[in-house]
Amino acid sequence: MLDAKLDQTLTAFLAGDRRAAARLITVVETGGPSAEALLEALYPRLRGVHRLGITGPPGVGKSTLVDVLVRHHRAHDRGVGVVAVDPTSPFTGGAVLGDRVRMNDLASDPGVFIRSMATRGSLGGLARATKEVADVLEAFGLEALIIETVGVGQTEMDIASTADTTVVVLSPESGDAIQAMKAGLMEAADVLVVNKSDRPAASQMVRTLEADLHMRPLAAWSPPVVQTIASKAEGIDALIAAIDDHQRHLAESGDLGLRRRRRVRNEILSVLRDRLWRRAERDLDDHLPAWTDRVAAGAATPYTAAHSLLAALLEDEE
Amino acid sequence: MLDAKLDQTLTAFLAGDRRAAARLITVVETGGPSAEALLEALYPRLRGVHRLGITGPPGVGKSTLVDVLVRHHRAHDRGVGVVAVDPTSPFTGGAVLGDRVRMNDLASDPGVFIRSMATRGSLGGLARATKEVADVLEAFGLEALIIETVGVGQTEMDIASTADTTVVVLSPESGDAIQAMKAGLMEAADVLVVNKSDRPAASQMVRTLEADLHMRPLAAWSPPVVQTIASKAEGIDALIAAIDDHQRHLAESGDLGLRRRRRVRNEILSVLRDRLWRRAERDLDDHLPAWTDRVAAGAATPYTAAHSLLAALLEDEE
Repeated sequence: MLDAKLDQTLTAFLAGDRRAAARLITVVETGGPSAEALLEALYPRLRGVHRLGITGPPGVGKSTLVDVLVRHHRAHDRGVGVVAVDPTSPFTGGAVLGDRVRMNDLASDPGVFIRSMATRGSLGGLARATKEVADVLEAFGLEALIIETVGVGQTEMDIASTADTTVVVLSPESGDAIQAMKAGLMEAADVLVVNKSDRPAASQMVRTLEADLHMRPLAAWSPPVVQTIASKAEGIDALIAAIDDHQRHLAESGDLGLRRRRRVRNEILSVLRDRLWRRAERDLDDHLPAWTDRVAAGAATPYTAAHSLLAALLEDEE
Repeated sequence: MLDAKLDQTLTAFLAGDRRAAARLITVVETGGPSAEALLEALYPRLRGVHRLGITGPPGVGKSTLVDVLVRHHRAHDRGVGVVAVDPTSPFTGGAVLGDRVRMNDLASDPGVFIRSMATRGSLGGLARATKEVADVLEAFGLEALIIETVGVGQTEMDIASTADTTVVVLSPESGDAIQAMKAGLMEAADVLVVNKSDRPAASQMVRTLEADLHMRPLAAWSPPVVQTIASKAEGIDALIAAIDDHQRHLAESGDLGLRRRRRVRNEILSVLRDRLWRRAERDLDDHLPAWTDRVAAGAATPYTAAHSLLAALLEDEE
């Protein structure tokens, strides 16, 4: 149940009020019963808008690329939502916000909604929070959604996996190609972009990436490698064509349904994990201090303690 | 129970074989029954060696500072273990390894053991893995332990919290001071370092940090702000004095016991969380697919699904 104030904000949101949208996103980010009730109310409004994920290491030009893609959608009169997430630290989080200042002309466009996500406090899972913020933007009526994340660690890959199409952006001359392969990025990318392609090492990097792709087992979709110079808006048509191709492939192959099912599954599991743990912590109060003492005194290992506590937890439920 | 091969490696480890130590660390990082049996065998060998955590944003000179501290311990003939963790991404992870190349002369010193931690695959919690690698190094007989982490996000703070004394390193001219305050770092720091203090903005930064510290409620320990130029080994005596002061404070105030108890508690909870979830996932197999279908079809929200699944899980235990 939504309380009266939230219900009023929802009404304004459904009428297209941007400030109401910003407020609802904060509610969702904060979590708790209000967030759940709100998502329940918004769920019937989700229409399956394509979600594009953009990820890659810092400094490769992701934000510039996102800007160009946003302008492309606007040229076709599509409302665009951007969720920019930086899971690495509050320091680089500041950098994302700084980048976004560049988009000021876009930010004043009523057809564009940009949200930089705070990473602190979303302990329930940044990937889930990102997905839910995108849900709010979709329910707001936006027709294109872009999720931008910095870095390519596990958290970033989890966030990217909330998208339908994942674009991995690299730049030449940074050793990115080898690192990307090591990090398993090649498996996660639906489209690979070599940005800053006016640099001399670019074509060598494209060859390295393509050679790696050719070593992979034959699959229904083979990620294309696209060269761009985002700062000059070069190569953007090819990138958009590659994204559109992938979107078509998803629809025709049935992969779209599979991906969205996986996304839903992950979200359910994420909520469940929180719930289960909150309950367990409550039940542990009786036994944890004694076991902590025992381990601190060197009389047991944390593993022995955890075994016993788990047994106690499961008995409690009986 | 240790298998024969691991038992042999453990014997070599206890005789001071470095390669055996490297292998045991890998076992602990990998986790599983072997890791647990190993930690059980090593636990009685922990003697409460002081653990120093060094954290701060990228580029402030943490590694150089760690090098200088390592040399200090070596000058006093103490064996030193360094665990270098970069939780941000495999890309910057590469940077940590790159930095370590500088320490080649230290790495060939038999009294120094340096381990860079891979971040991928330690989903059981990087903080726990870090703590356990430090346990192995302590059991190996090293007399000083330094845990270095890049960045100041929640993961990094969790890692830092496995140390007895946490040093937060900042550099002037980077806006670090304000970000550090926003990130709650001031609360986590036992010692604050302004490195690269030959830069003009350094003294202003020290004033800002000290002003912020003076606003805090009076506590038994007030973090000193130390200025260093790690690249010239300047200010190191003051830093070491500050660390020693804090160590003394911990012992005299009883805080050391509290911190170590908290560290143990967190490790128990981390193991327990994994166990509980692994069991839940197994039990969920029966119900999860149907709920995923329902949510994917828009007939339920992930929250409704999670509620029902939790109820089913708890019933199963009865």
